[in-house]
Amino acid sequence: MAQKPSIPKGTRDFSPAEMARRNYIFDTIRDVFRLFGFHQIETPAMENLSTLMGKYGEEGDKLLFKILNSGNYLASVDPSLLDETCVNRLTTQIAEKGLRYDLTVPFARFVVQHRNDIQFPFRRFQIQPVWRADRPQKGRYREFYQCDADVVGSDSLLNEVELLQLIDEVFSRLGIRIAIKLNNRKVLAGIAELIGEPDKMIDITVAIDKIDKIGIEKVNEELADRGLSSEAIAALQPILEIGGTVAERLDRLESLLQPSEIGTLGVAELRTVVNATLALGLKAELDLDVSLARGLNYYTGTIIEVKALDYAIGSITGGGRYDNLTGVFGMPDVSGVGISFGADRIYDVLNELDLYPAELGTAARVMFVNFGDAEAARSLAVIKQLRAAGISCELYPESAKLKKQMAYANNAGIPFVAIIGDKELASGMVTLKNMAEGTQADLTVEALVEALA
Amino acid sequence: MAQKPSIPKGTRDFSPAEMARRNYIFDTIRDVFRLFGFHQIETPAMENLSTLMGKYGEEGDKLLFKILNSGNYLASVDPSLLDETCVNRLTTQIAEKGLRYDLTVPFARFVVQHRNDIQFPFRRFQIQPVWRADRPQKGRYREFYQCDADVVGSDSLLNEVELLQLIDEVFSRLGIRIAIKLNNRKVLAGIAELIGEPDKMIDITVAIDKIDKIGIEKVNEELADRGLSSEAIAALQPILEIGGTVAERLDRLESLLQPSEIGTLGVAELRTVVNATLALGLKAELDLDVSLARGLNYYTGTIIEVKALDYAIGSITGGGRYDNLTGVFGMPDVSGVGISFGADRIYDVLNELDLYPAELGTAARVMFVNFGDAEAARSLAVIKQLRAAGISCELYPESAKLKKQMAYANNAGIPFVAIIGDKELASGMVTLKNMAEGTQADLTVEALVEALA
Repeated sequence: MAQKPSIPKGTRDFSPAEMARRNYIFDTIRDVFRLFGFHQIETPAMENLSTLMGKYGEEGDKLLFKILNSGNYLASVDPSLLDETCVNRLTTQIAEKGLRYDLTVPFARFVVQHRNDIQFPFRRFQIQPVWRADRPQKGRYREFYQCDADVVGSDSLLNEVELLQLIDEVFSRLGIRIAIKLNNRKVLAGIAELIGEPDKMIDITVAIDKIDKIGIEKVNEELADRGLSSEAIAALQPILEIGGTVAERLDRLESLLQPSEIGTLGVAELRTVVNATLALGLKAELDLDVSLARGLNYYTGTIIEVKALDYAIGSITGGGRYDNLTGVFGMPDVSGVGISFGADRIYDVLNELDLYPAELGTAARVMFVNFGDAEAARSLAVIKQLRAAGISCELYPESAKLKKQMAYANNAGIPFVAIIGDKELASGMVTLKNMAEGTQADLTVEALVEALA
Repeated sequence: MAQKPSIPKGTRDFSPAEMARRNYIFDTIRDVFRLFGFHQIETPAMENLSTLMGKYGEEGDKLLFKILNSGNYLASVDPSLLDETCVNRLTTQIAEKGLRYDLTVPFARFVVQHRNDIQFPFRRFQIQPVWRADRPQKGRYREFYQCDADVVGSDSLLNEVELLQLIDEVFSRLGIRIAIKLNNRKVLAGIAELIGEPDKMIDITVAIDKIDKIGIEKVNEELADRGLSSEAIAALQPILEIGGTVAERLDRLESLLQPSEIGTLGVAELRTVVNATLALGLKAELDLDVSLARGLNYYTGTIIEVKALDYAIGSITGGGRYDNLTGVFGMPDVSGVGISFGADRIYDVLNELDLYPAELGTAARVMFVNFGDAEAARSLAVIKQLRAAGISCELYPESAKLKKQMAYANNAGIPFVAIIGDKELASGMVTLKNMAEGTQADLTVEALVEALA
């Protein structure tokens, strides 16, 4: 029975050409992670739903892909739950596992589970796919890669400084011009305190996070809808309007937030990170943005977001400090700070700006033409010598028409074609054709190795 | 709420030390795949269940991890199915997607879906995890990696020869001594024909595949249970008892199978592959094994299996030729041949035989001790220069006791520790300590780069 095959919406196949580009991104990020002394771990695609549920808010729970229990999953289900009005409770009985939604919660679980084997401060990196049952749209996929680096077990702000250097190095290697935006959750708490609405910090941050998208007027409307008094909204305006250089804005923020202890601490943290970073030098633009909240409620200190300067696509990297990520798994007081590179958006930026290196091809360096059994046998023997010298090769597997074989090499982007026909069988030589230049030469096997190495 | 965190049974976390070992295996296999001119692709973890179901037999269907549809998945379900006796039909209504079970069926789907963009013969490789709801046991996991290389769109036996060379190169690089066992499905069909039971080829192969495990007598019992006549079983014995060198066994098999056209063709194919492979030379032992069937019914020609010689663990690589893999997706007559490296078993073999290279560490090359703000700032500036020279470094993020910092470097396997204290701040020098030798030296930054590069 013939079926027309397809893949689930929001997922993708990657062709060899796409893989070459993706590997370039992953290899670059991985190399920099290692250069900065981070250690790789991997966690399973499936986590227990008890690990994942409740960590990403109510909306996040809905976006988890849940895996049906094996066997007769209905056997032990309370029959009264077999009704569409009870679907959430039924789910907990028929699905115990889910696909990971990000790398942060599995990492927190990993740290707690392996706490006795881990040396703190623990600098870990992790590059793996995550899955979200989001509505697919341009640039948003249901399976995508995250590339995370975190330092846990240290509350030193030097970790933030290191991560900013790391971000700078990755994007500098990729050739993407970026702005790094900084904020601090304590500044946001200070602002809420200052305007007399300390309990509404979440409402305030959710609303002002949208300034770039919807403008300050709509933000003010939303703040009112969220129950902020008009006095509070008025008191907020001078903070949202702070301008000038980073140093000027830090000064202005410091003086505005002076009545708030936590706000003052937040500004001091920002100042430490900014000064140390600028002292070391940064290719990226560095920017303060008090409207930056990144939605994630587990951040407690520094908040980091990276935007590409030459292509509008939203955040391409983000992160921040969290003081209690592992607390929910029974291990309190472990401070950490981390960043996550969005490989799929970085891929889109590189594609759009055409920033890939020219020589990204993954094809073999040379293809041997196949003229029949005896020639193929000789070719395989020569190929074996080339491979021993590290030169990637392939033999066209059929003695097809020469034109067809040459078209294959050409379409595959193979730069050299080697020919062993009657003449070469007799002479022991190999004819090597340079596909780009159209030139060819008669070479001994030794000379061939030398020419291709 | 504190939960004791864990991961689903049959899945694993990988620590940095384990990742270093796994990366060594994956990098070795990937390098050889590329050396042989194979191109990497990736497919999504989730496939439509319509793609996966029915491809792995009834047992395989049960072992697929199925993903619950998003939203209210009960809304459109026929209420009469909400009963544990209807669980299989219910599943098809509440789960449309599943996790891939191997890389072969997704590859067949990929070939058919992208047939217009693919150049044939297509040499593809793919290294990704697969998931099976198998009962977990020693050496068998619910999430594990496969590393596959296939050539599709060519029925030339040179592809088999190339894949055998590739297997030899991978295990030679890994230092694992192996035996490669060969068989051919057509030989199995010939045997069934010869003993007068042409319709029982599957029964015969399933039974004789177990010779190594249960012995010839139990196999004969099973053959009788499966309905083979005692004449047929008697006729089978001389074939199962064939001995001698590979060449002798080929000759003997040829003469025994001479009455069967398909059997004769199978022997001729084996002879071609064996002769070409031995002519090129092989480090591995090459062996014929007419009891080899590999369970997978889609093989139609060559069957390949690899065993480690120095550690008993079952097959560590396997593969074969299939003439109609894509037929089920509406694209007939595409012949292919492929192999699959079992990375997790190879990992076990390397662990058991202790065959990893000594220098597999992933730690930074040098850690800078942290004596306080001024020293840390200077250290970060030096670190920036080292990293620019490609030397991986880290700064201990806290100005903790020296003993604690040194213990960290020691436990992390960091080979060098750099010290910038009062004295070095004043002199502009860096003290470098070699952790293994216990020696230390005062160096300029330039000399430091040279010492560590």
